[in-house]
Amino acid sequence: MTNKHIHLNVFVPTTGHHEASWLYSGSQPERLTDVDYYREIAAIAERGKFDSLFLADQLAIGRSVKHVAQGKLEPLTLLSALAGSTSHIGLIATASTTYSEPYNLARQFASLDHISGGRAGWNIVTSWSAEAAGNFGLDQRNSHTDRYRRATEYVEVVRKLWDSWEDDARVLDRTLGIYADTARIHAIGHQGEAFRVRGPLDIPRSPQGNPVLVQAGSSDEGRGFAARYAEAIFTAQQDLGEAQGFYADVKRRALAFGRDPDGIKILPGLSPILGSTEAEARALEEELDDLTLPVVGLKHLSQRFDGFDFSVFPLDERIPIEAFPRPETVQGAQSRSQVILNIVEREKPTLRQLLRRLAGGRGHKVLAGTPKAVADHIQLWVEQRAADGFNIMPAFMPGGLSAFVDEVVPILQARGLFRRDYTGRSLREHYGLTRPESRYARSA
Amino acid sequence: MTNKHIHLNVFVPTTGHHEASWLYSGSQPERLTDVDYYREIAAIAERGKFDSLFLADQLAIGRSVKHVAQGKLEPLTLLSALAGSTSHIGLIATASTTYSEPYNLARQFASLDHISGGRAGWNIVTSWSAEAAGNFGLDQRNSHTDRYRRATEYVEVVRKLWDSWEDDARVLDRTLGIYADTARIHAIGHQGEAFRVRGPLDIPRSPQGNPVLVQAGSSDEGRGFAARYAEAIFTAQQDLGEAQGFYADVKRRALAFGRDPDGIKILPGLSPILGSTEAEARALEEELDDLTLPVVGLKHLSQRFDGFDFSVFPLDERIPIEAFPRPETVQGAQSRSQVILNIVEREKPTLRQLLRRLAGGRGHKVLAGTPKAVADHIQLWVEQRAADGFNIMPAFMPGGLSAFVDEVVPILQARGLFRRDYTGRSLREHYGLTRPESRYARSA
Repeated sequence: MTNKHIHLNVFVPTTGHHEASWLYSGSQPERLTDVDYYREIAAIAERGKFDSLFLADQLAIGRSVKHVAQGKLEPLTLLSALAGSTSHIGLIATASTTYSEPYNLARQFASLDHISGGRAGWNIVTSWSAEAAGNFGLDQRNSHTDRYRRATEYVEVVRKLWDSWEDDARVLDRTLGIYADTARIHAIGHQGEAFRVRGPLDIPRSPQGNPVLVQAGSSDEGRGFAARYAEAIFTAQQDLGEAQGFYADVKRRALAFGRDPDGIKILPGLSPILGSTEAEARALEEELDDLTLPVVGLKHLSQRFDGFDFSVFPLDERIPIEAFPRPETVQGAQSRSQVILNIVEREKPTLRQLLRRLAGGRGHKVLAGTPKAVADHIQLWVEQRAADGFNIMPAFMPGGLSAFVDEVVPILQARGLFRRDYTGRSLREHYGLTRPESRYARSA
Repeated sequence: MTNKHIHLNVFVPTTGHHEASWLYSGSQPERLTDVDYYREIAAIAERGKFDSLFLADQLAIGRSVKHVAQGKLEPLTLLSALAGSTSHIGLIATASTTYSEPYNLARQFASLDHISGGRAGWNIVTSWSAEAAGNFGLDQRNSHTDRYRRATEYVEVVRKLWDSWEDDARVLDRTLGIYADTARIHAIGHQGEAFRVRGPLDIPRSPQGNPVLVQAGSSDEGRGFAARYAEAIFTAQQDLGEAQGFYADVKRRALAFGRDPDGIKILPGLSPILGSTEAEARALEEELDDLTLPVVGLKHLSQRFDGFDFSVFPLDERIPIEAFPRPETVQGAQSRSQVILNIVEREKPTLRQLLRRLAGGRGHKVLAGTPKAVADHIQLWVEQRAADGFNIMPAFMPGGLSAFVDEVVPILQARGLFRRDYTGRSLREHYGLTRPESRYARSA
């Protein structure tokens, strides 16, 4: 495995991935709607030779806007702006299959792929929050299963649209007056359960053919979906053994779909909190955790369990595992609720301890330590087949990212684990993925 | 009127507004998906101190892709990219109220407004083409009246969402741990015929408060809609008298809605074909018209009249006005079909002549002449209260635009009719429009 380069994505948050990051002096909450803030972050990540940067999206503000920094820019417009201030880094936008039309989404991602010269990626989400549902005319969200069924058809439609112009469809023959060869531009004629879409797309095929498909669902349905479509997976993993199990399972499922297991990159979340000594790193983690408010943590925990009210439990007593709703009944993000239950089972925390435990990464791994310790962790997980790289989630921005770039990346490079410079231009090239041919291309 | 500055918008086409522009050596059809092509156009327009640039959108490719250059980039992503390469010019994207969700549209325009520092405008369309309908699961498009009813509710929802964060909602008080004052962030609780949207938006209020609303419908329903909401109107006008009538009617209707008639800028389309002498201009117009193909013109004409087949008529005979469908029965763009009928009535062309007549501007005014003649036309129409400025539609790109900027703009500036430099930064400032306060703002 060591001869293979790892992949690094930066998950761009508001002020940081730590729940209380906006209260920390190293963050910049006043800049959330300032495009230059994101340009600065993108420049740091590109200096660090990251494969990609990624923007999440909730389609609603959360219930704790009084105490939590929210209200950033919309991913597709923001990444289109960042395409112009960067030259190599991949640009991954989250977009929902539940609250949009595939024709609109297909063309915006195709356009971003053209604008960025082949650096677009789509993080496919099915939008689990009840808050989002209320902004789109639904009294409550659709069930987990319904969302994935719609998502599957949705992705099929989008991929057909991306393929609808063959690469060489534009002929541009001024002498004959032929702009395009209409035999190479295809109506897709999709007729399905949720969608009827005639096509073709109104944009020629983009540099990557298809923008890279990314996915973050880790439930059973989420894994099945990812194994079929995803080319990169973001996942929350706390434990090496569990991560190895997830890794093996997804690669095996991909193989069962006839896919090359190397064509699907598994990137667990990792929120590094760096210090020049371990004590210094732990002190910074403490400082951040001390800024948390239980009222905020309780709201976030409640959101993870379909609105279940944890505030009835005493903060300083152990919270019994039986008190939690069972994850298979959760209609929101099932796999994340399982991650939280595993923490409860393993660590037997009080409610207050659990809230602090989740404040850093919301179920993602938080690692406070020296740059070497963080690099060791990354190397171990990659060598032990628990990851193909990491989704880096800085606790605060932009300082948390620049510390990683300046202190951890050079160690990974020195160990031959990470690129010293970009060798390709497209996100597919960074991830080592092939460029798909249009499904409509005639064999020559 | 002459003490008032006129407004100039450039309508950015594919290769040019002339139907055959891609066949003309001065156009660049190979660059339609190249963001640098649009950056170059935006830079020329900004050098010319234009108020704004504008991208149309059809949500489908037309039926003549074999012979007509099509397949450009998606407006919102493209304008987000252009925001970074420009500093002052307004950025107007067309987006449909028929095939999208108001929450998605509201946030993308709010985001573009943040990204551009207050330069976003939304050209509201109801999408008349049957081709677009087929890409969104409809067997046929909705009727003209249904589209406008939905559009009215849609715009109300979007404006509420844009107002849902008051300007000072973010408090950012780290000492008290208060990020936002939730009393100044409002659920909109919209419950209407077509939409139920809880809100608030997930993006703080944007620099312009509301991006500028632009509209291009000129039918009776379109005028009513524009008089109520639009802050700029694009319209096709061939004749001074008719344009004066339209101008007076829209301003009167706006007044009836309690609006300041100056708060709605009327910008007829104008496709200038420039030459250093009138003969030279006419020769260029001939050269472009000679490149047209009747098969293309017939398809475009057919599209304007709900698919009516004109190819049954002999090309070189006068086409009787009775042969056309009556405009009030047209479910597509009613006002444009009326413009075409007026041409037929006035000029009594053969079918071939009519097709050539429409090849330049699809019903918009084409003016072949010297820079002085074009400047005279602009001045006359503005002084005669037929226009507040023009929607400039270069016949071919980018040369047609740079000729206008280099040759016509200086004349307008020398006459004191047009700005020599920008005095404001936002599109509202360029158009002389006030910044609306949030409807939810408490009176102090």
